Amino acid sequence: MHSPIIILIEPQLGENIGMVARAMANMGLSRLRLVAPRDGWPNEIARAASSGAEHILNGAQLFDSFDEATSDCHYIFVTSARVHRQAKPVTGPQDAARRLRQKVKAGQKVAVLFGRERNGLTSDEISRAHEILTFPVVDDHPSLNLAQAVLLFGYAWRTADEDEGELLPHVTQLGSKPASSGEIESFFQQLVETLLKAGYFKPEHRREVMERNLRNIFLRRELTSQDVQTLHGVLTALKIQQAGP
Amino acid sequence: MHSPIIILIEPQLGENIGMVARAMANMGLSRLRLVAPRDGWPNEIARAASSGAEHILNGAQLFDSFDEATSDCHYIFVTSARVHRQAKPVTGPQDAARRLRQKVKAGQKVAVLFGRERNGLTSDEISRAHEILTFPVVDDHPSLNLAQAVLLFGYAWRTADEDEGELLPHVTQLGSKPASSGEIESFFQQLVETLLKAGYFKPEHRREVMERNLRNIFLRRELTSQDVQTLHGVLTALKIQQAGP
Repeated sequence: MHSPIIILIEPQLGENIGMVARAMANMGLSRLRLVAPRDGWPNEIARAASSGAEHILNGAQLFDSFDEATSDCHYIFVTSARVHRQAKPVTGPQDAARRLRQKVKAGQKVAVLFGRERNGLTSDEISRAHEILTFPVVDDHPSLNLAQAVLLFGYAWRTADEDEGELLPHVTQLGSKPASSGEIESFFQQLVETLLKAGYFKPEHRREVMERNLRNIFLRRELTSQDVQTLHGVLTALKIQQAGP
Repeated sequence: MHSPIIILIEPQLGENIGMVARAMANMGLSRLRLVAPRDGWPNEIARAASSGAEHILNGAQLFDSFDEATSDCHYIFVTSARVHRQAKPVTGPQDAARRLRQKVKAGQKVAVLFGRERNGLTSDEISRAHEILTFPVVDDHPSLNLAQAVLLFGYAWRTADEDEGELLPHVTQLGSKPASSGEIESFFQQLVETLLKAGYFKPEHRREVMERNLRNIFLRRELTSQDVQTLHGVLTALKIQQAGP
């Protein structure tokens, strides 16, 4: 599936362009357009700030004007944090991402525009979009920098249709396979036996409750087979000590 | 409701600490702890980079060690993008945020830890947490900077229990109240009358279809009362022209 086109209107700092590329790469967005970047293009500072997302900068398309950069797009969101008097729908990133996915699936070319670091977008530019995208930030601190705004949209895009858990990088989930009830119970019986010899279950009439409490400690979170082996090692050491030198 | 405590372990660059504070302010997080920041504390560079989130830096608590910074916390997430061999659950930000909200509601003090910019957290540090928090980034580009990781967690925290739309800043939603069917129909009748005089409905037997197509254009998007007034103005100008000088 194509991804939305990220369009930066007259970006000022090369560092910000590079960090936008990095945020896009983090979230699987690949199509970048630049309208009249202040310091020209290509930009070495952008490259240095991209942290390995150079392929996005290399593929970036350069345009002279807003209209040229958007003329082939079917649906346009502009991002803005300020109050506008324009009669235009205002949408958060999750809702925007869900609807943009439907449009992309239907074969449309969609774009999300980000304004100048200092001044954002002009009222005229905002009037040329279909909707305004804004972020659910705290009213007193509405200012997101360019790369952060792109990152949040990208995150919403990436997680719009999928269970987040499926998208996590391949971090080892449990270290080894979960322990079976039999493995845990076998360990537990040896533990009880060892504790009996150590005189742990006193008074005798509380033994049942004490056993239950102990068992619950080991059952409360999933143990792995490796965990149970570790615990067996602990027990073995204690038994050897009990047996004496 | 209390918010999770954000703990930075040996942060290196003051600029990153400042941008973390800014991201926290964006997302309504306020409790920051710093463990042995490399360049000491307070840090003027952090202040400059915080973009008005100085209250968070002023309230930041300073600690010498991981253990001191976490000793009063009931539940700890560590953030990490790397593969670990530890038998510890790995969770995405949305799931983590939802469960942390439940713990906070139950009166627990919860913390999310972020490691050193260059090296992250040590295996020993990771072993002291309950769970690993990671982000659903693209496998080839897993590297988020410190403030971006805090921002994404903060966004997940802020939107965990609430409809995102309710959290958008107070941007004017539609400029004015929606137009009623009567307002739209009144305009539409005048439009038809004007087009009749202009000879638009040709051939006559297609008039019904042409009217329906036209009406659909105006009904397809919600118009506001202001929109309808604007359209009436357009019509009036055209009628005056029709009447001739």
